[in-house]
Amino acid sequence: MLALDHHPSGRHFLQIPGPSPVPDRILRALSLPTIDHRGPEFGALGLKVLAGMQQVFRTRHPVAIYPASGTGAWEAALVNTLSPGDAVLMFETGHFATLWQKMALRLGLQPEFLAVPGTDAATGLPWSWRRGVSAELIGERLRADAGHTIKAVCVVHNETSTGVTSDIAAVRRAIDAAGHPALLLVDTISGLASADYRHDEWGVDVTVSGSQKGLMLPPGISFNALSPKALDASRSAKLPRAYWGWDEIVEMNKSGYWPYTPNTNLLYGLAEALDMLLGQGLETVFARHRRWAEGVRGAVRAWGLPIQCADAALYSPVLTGVITPAGVDADALRKLIHERFDLSLGTGLGKVRGRMFRIGHLGDCNDLTLMATLAGVEMGLKLGGVALAGSGVLAAMEYFAAHPQSLPLRAAA
Amino acid sequence: MLALDHHPSGRHFLQIPGPSPVPDRILRALSLPTIDHRGPEFGALGLKVLAGMQQVFRTRHPVAIYPASGTGAWEAALVNTLSPGDAVLMFETGHFATLWQKMALRLGLQPEFLAVPGTDAATGLPWSWRRGVSAELIGERLRADAGHTIKAVCVVHNETSTGVTSDIAAVRRAIDAAGHPALLLVDTISGLASADYRHDEWGVDVTVSGSQKGLMLPPGISFNALSPKALDASRSAKLPRAYWGWDEIVEMNKSGYWPYTPNTNLLYGLAEALDMLLGQGLETVFARHRRWAEGVRGAVRAWGLPIQCADAALYSPVLTGVITPAGVDADALRKLIHERFDLSLGTGLGKVRGRMFRIGHLGDCNDLTLMATLAGVEMGLKLGGVALAGSGVLAAMEYFAAHPQSLPLRAAA
Amino acid sequence: MLALDHHPSGRHFLQIPGPSPVPDRILRALSLPTIDHRGPEFGALGLKVLAGMQQVFRTRHPVAIYPASGTGAWEAALVNTLSPGDAVLMFETGHFATLWQKMALRLGLQPEFLAVPGTDAATGLPWSWRRGVSAELIGERLRADAGHTIKAVCVVHNETSTGVTSDIAAVRRAIDAAGHPALLLVDTISGLASADYRHDEWGVDVTVSGSQKGLMLPPGISFNALSPKALDASRSAKLPRAYWGWDEIVEMNKSGYWPYTPNTNLLYGLAEALDMLLGQGLETVFARHRRWAEGVRGAVRAWGLPIQCADAALYSPVLTGVITPAGVDADALRKLIHERFDLSLGTGLGKVRGRMFRIGHLGDCNDLTLMATLAGVEMGLKLGGVALAGSGVLAAMEYFAAHPQSLPLRAAA
Amino acid sequence: MLALDHHPSGRHFLQIPGPSPVPDRILRALSLPTIDHRGPEFGALGLKVLAGMQQVFRTRHPVAIYPASGTGAWEAALVNTLSPGDAVLMFETGHFATLWQKMALRLGLQPEFLAVPGTDAATGLPWSWRRGVSAELIGERLRADAGHTIKAVCVVHNETSTGVTSDIAAVRRAIDAAGHPALLLVDTISGLASADYRHDEWGVDVTVSGSQKGLMLPPGISFNALSPKALDASRSAKLPRAYWGWDEIVEMNKSGYWPYTPNTNLLYGLAEALDMLLGQGLETVFARHRRWAEGVRGAVRAWGLPIQCADAALYSPVLTGVITPAGVDADALRKLIHERFDLSLGTGLGKVRGRMFRIGHLGDCNDLTLMATLAGVEMGLKLGGVALAGSGVLAAMEYFAAHPQSLPLRAAA
Repeated sequence: MLALDHHPSGRHFLQIPGPSPVPDRILRALSLPTIDHRGPEFGALGLKVLAGMQQVFRTRHPVAIYPASGTGAWEAALVNTLSPGDAVLMFETGHFATLWQKMALRLGLQPEFLAVPGTDAATGLPWSWRRGVSAELIGERLRADAGHTIKAVCVVHNETSTGVTSDIAAVRRAIDAAGHPALLLVDTISGLASADYRHDEWGVDVTVSGSQKGLMLPPGISFNALSPKALDASRSAKLPRAYWGWDEIVEMNKSGYWPYTPNTNLLYGLAEALDMLLGQGLETVFARHRRWAEGVRGAVRAWGLPIQCADAALYSPVLTGVITPAGVDADALRKLIHERFDLSLGTGLGKVRGRMFRIGHLGDCNDLTLMATLAGVEMGLKLGGVALAGSGVLAAMEYFAAHPQSLPLRAAA
Repeated sequence: MLALDHHPSGRHFLQIPGPSPVPDRILRALSLPTIDHRGPEFGALGLKVLAGMQQVFRTRHPVAIYPASGTGAWEAALVNTLSPGDAVLMFETGHFATLWQKMALRLGLQPEFLAVPGTDAATGLPWSWRRGVSAELIGERLRADAGHTIKAVCVVHNETSTGVTSDIAAVRRAIDAAGHPALLLVDTISGLASADYRHDEWGVDVTVSGSQKGLMLPPGISFNALSPKALDASRSAKLPRAYWGWDEIVEMNKSGYWPYTPNTNLLYGLAEALDMLLGQGLETVFARHRRWAEGVRGAVRAWGLPIQCADAALYSPVLTGVITPAGVDADALRKLIHERFDLSLGTGLGKVRGRMFRIGHLGDCNDLTLMATLAGVEMGLKLGGVALAGSGVLAAMEYFAAHPQSLPLRAAA
Repeated sequence: MLALDHHPSGRHFLQIPGPSPVPDRILRALSLPTIDHRGPEFGALGLKVLAGMQQVFRTRHPVAIYPASGTGAWEAALVNTLSPGDAVLMFETGHFATLWQKMALRLGLQPEFLAVPGTDAATGLPWSWRRGVSAELIGERLRADAGHTIKAVCVVHNETSTGVTSDIAAVRRAIDAAGHPALLLVDTISGLASADYRHDEWGVDVTVSGSQKGLMLPPGISFNALSPKALDASRSAKLPRAYWGWDEIVEMNKSGYWPYTPNTNLLYGLAEALDMLLGQGLETVFARHRRWAEGVRGAVRAWGLPIQCADAALYSPVLTGVITPAGVDADALRKLIHERFDLSLGTGLGKVRGRMFRIGHLGDCNDLTLMATLAGVEMGLKLGGVALAGSGVLAAMEYFAAHPQSLPLRAAA
Repeated sequence: MLALDHHPSGRHFLQIPGPSPVPDRILRALSLPTIDHRGPEFGALGLKVLAGMQQVFRTRHPVAIYPASGTGAWEAALVNTLSPGDAVLMFETGHFATLWQKMALRLGLQPEFLAVPGTDAATGLPWSWRRGVSAELIGERLRADAGHTIKAVCVVHNETSTGVTSDIAAVRRAIDAAGHPALLLVDTISGLASADYRHDEWGVDVTVSGSQKGLMLPPGISFNALSPKALDASRSAKLPRAYWGWDEIVEMNKSGYWPYTPNTNLLYGLAEALDMLLGQGLETVFARHRRWAEGVRGAVRAWGLPIQCADAALYSPVLTGVITPAGVDADALRKLIHERFDLSLGTGLGKVRGRMFRIGHLGDCNDLTLMATLAGVEMGLKLGGVALAGSGVLAAMEYFAAHPQSLPLRAAA
């Protein structure tokens, strides 16, 4: 069996913004014996996870679960609702928004890629990679689209490459205010089950998500939450599709089955994750992530390093991007930290490559996991020659000690 | 955690032709902690499984591994090599050949669906669902295609719905003899790693396979083995594709990584499966399946029931289809057997629904697993009122006792 | 990691009368992270398993759980209740009764070893190894002990070496009828949780048991169920003891803890086993074993081989001893069956070495597990040159098919 | 299955000095299917773990492995070598030395309990609980025992209740210098495989150890490493013994088997632990623990709290005892830290109850595990109102950053 012993002792600290640390309970559930995906026990499993995912997405409408990673669910959202050559309005918030836009191009769509303009003089980074989706710019653009050639607006809720969580309800309001019929497609791959998300209430037509973030699963399952309007659109959309086709999967899912072989063992894990998350209550889960994020940001501020998200209203509860001083190679730092302290941090992607690293504070963590993480980062920054204004570790300890989680433990000792 | 306790005691006998019984070693490997798919340990894992899969496919060319089930790999084979409206020649050997053909239609291709003509008077079943691919018919059709409008020939190697294993080398010879440039696309989802298969030697351009059969894994990983000609074709093929695109995946795979998040924990299982299969040697594995198949067919003959595969040269080493007498509902039998004996058998699909059941003899089995299976079937047949010519169980015991596996055990006692 | 791949494919059939096949659920529970055995979660676990074991032993009195195998619990029963040189009356029912008697000797006690007299002419085996405890002989001996020098009567409930289950209530009646104050110590290591057992109702003073039989756990935990009279005796008993001492363990157990480090991970397994067994109800479990035993005995009879237990009222629901014809080396047969069919059977122990083998039908089995087992035995017997009167496999199929388990499955399909 | 979810998110930090954190590899090995402990695969396992344990104890002589926790192995050491009423010289180094002495009393021996005299005025704690074994006092006492009535000297190598590691070689020299024939019995339950230990070189007659410390296993296995002189003594020793008897176990172990049912699944874990420890090399393992210990002591010094071990030459690499200021209830602190930060620390035992807590730095840890631990302690101390001289966390970060582990990783990235 694989030893995974690059470091010979102790548990790896996987503090990238996904895959997140998977709880032992879920790892163990993955190892249940594979069953017949046409048998009676499977149907019960299927119905359970489908109903649970509706709760997580906060929707009364169908959720399609794909045996695929998140990129597949991006594709599913596009090919089910659009036709070759359709114009779509996308918004550059970072690397993943950019990848989704490239995918739209590959699929023969005509994406228009809006962005917050300008560059931050202090860091040399584009403002678009430090801010959220501008509902105002979207509204403006849609109002200009009198002929309604734009068929969909595609935005990323929690941009994993920057640590910015955009206001999706505002985007919906902007679309509605423009009186525009475009569908609203949202990627919350890294936000779901960590950050508050409301598919129905916010008027989203397709929400795309994946397993390896807030759901605390390995990668390999992804999701489309649908709206009736999206289902309508899929009936006339012309992009070819088979594997991703909502028609068969939504139909078969009604009885808990799939039109082709589903990802049985990952669904075992999903059932376990849903028991954990819904058992605790999503509000509890969200509060936990917000508190961790605040503690981590306190550390970054104490170090005197810029937080990548430049809009305090949009700080991600999932991850925090940390901008390194000019001249410091963030990836060399990450490598040093990995080698010395068995800690994985997220790399800078795309336009911020080498200029930042990302601390994940999602999934199966607790205060001490994050203290270990911050200690690894602080030691690494010093070893890497970064001058620090102060100790982020001390700041975080102060924050965590002073701000107990408000919710009671499962059982009093 | 899920209890999976529909039957309160003992281990389920999963003798459908896939998912096959997953060895404990592999189940345990699935539960290794998820790692960073961009980190150094992942690259080593990626290179290992890619090299191993080349050995399993017997190819020197790239193998694309998808986080998707087999149906996705079908789609990948088509969208990477073909353009909208392309004519493809497909061959009806059963349910899965039919599903692939339906997929081709959905994707905007123009499949022509050849079949062995006629109906078996004795059983009322179409001969095409009891025989293999006719290389002769294919050759004939290609010779008639003087304009080379047919872009690909698509056939199923091991038809999981019938238990017939077609002669792929003969198909290649027929294409070549016709001097036709069509690509040869082959589905061996249920054949790979159980039945002899040679991607390069047989001149296959794209081989499609999946994880949950001979590879003894849960579903969720699928494969495209490629030829240089297929890679060439992909450069001009016009069907839109992103998730399935070979270009990025083949490029990234060179260093053991993926263009998007791979199926990390299932890849752990794949690494373990490859250690097992290649450690034993594929010939040993194939011999094991042939011997089991022969024992099972001996049982079916003793019962006096027709084996679905009507061509003894094409018996599948993976599964055996058993035709039930007219008037006996094979699915009611299967249900009775499942309830009473905790044994899952394969259902009759498509044109043979209700008229047959399938016994899987693949994956992590041994002689006594199959004796248990045959005992469950024999008891079920009697309880279901099927008059049997004799005891299949006695016949199989005689066969297994008289034909020891020729290969030595790992260690002498 | 250990490969345990002596046989390269398929799951081993572990049909010895213990360790019994361990369900996956329990194996998985064993791998939960080890916790602080002084922390709050441990106390809850301790109380749960202690209460559960009282239900299994059917007692309202304390049960001591030892981190030790069954032999340790034998020792605990003796050293807690007896003083050096004490006379104890033991009864030879087979190998394990003999071993317990040898232990009594080693510990400085004076065991008297009663036995049913005589030898079976047909097999050459002593009758004592084919029959149960004679309450009559015990009563007779106790009546002769006017001075009450005998301090304890020690008998084996389910003799694992012979497949005979003695009548414990009858032994208690004999002691009482003799007006004798001796303690009644009973070993039901292999009987508990497979065969009906009632510590309180039957008036047992110390019941000894272990984990690796009906409780479906790996070995490593053993038990003493106590009576108030046994606890009284322990206050004046003079054999030295520390690890085994009831005083500290019973006291600490009241709050769910142990005086020394307990067997944490095996206790996780025990908690899971109790959920399974008590969830189904012990009567359901006992009925299941009786039915399996009847099916197996039908096979042995069809083969024309003698069942070791010569008293039909005392057939064990746990295992069946099968006597091989004179001149046939039962251990050579077992070895052949193990090598060829990956099936472990129990060896003949002590006075029946080489003359018999044992088929376990306990733990996590079902009808098809036993059909596989019987098929392996039948093929092995034939390969070993044993002339059989008929097919035991056919007989067992007939029995199992004709006698469905009367209890409903967990869920209707 | 048990949820063990007292804290709803994240992994528990088990930093008590045993059970230590168990690596996932070992937890997974525990869940391998239980096999026949009389079959061929078991013999290979038995020989492997016995040979491995000889390497760990650094002995060429037999090692007895018991299915029992460490307390059982204490008893085994005494009952195999001694007779009722024998005088034994024991040395009070803390709670576990005291428990062993109480056990000797229970077993009918006459222990004499030496101790370093006096009380530390600063803390009010006895010096004997802050220092190691005095070889000088032992030598003096043995020289006075002209009649050689003392049969054994019993000392604890690594006193788990205090964090003091005594000099065993010095004790042997003192015995030899006194020309005294007493056996040397040593408990290194918590020292083995974390601290340097040399059974043969140091002239130890019986070394007692357990599984749940440096061997990184759950509790449930314990050990006696023997000397020829100890084996000789066992032939005439008169304390009754059966389960613990070396004669049968040493004899049976020669072929890899046990006289009674061994602890199969924990032995799977032991095989895995030996692969890990011996694969890395014990010196590497020891160096790792010494470095962690130094880092932790740096933190304690920075806080301004006394380290319990008052002799810098005897600091334990396994754990560090931290004395809390007078008036601070150490157990209330531990409880607060457990509730708030999901961190288990060791309690003060016996004469130091409530006056100290223990930080374990053994088993499957790394630098960040210890940083997390120290952060939890520092936050807890502050929340508990303890005035600290400075930040132990900063001190430890400085130490760990400045002192990289000297040994290369398994693979370069």
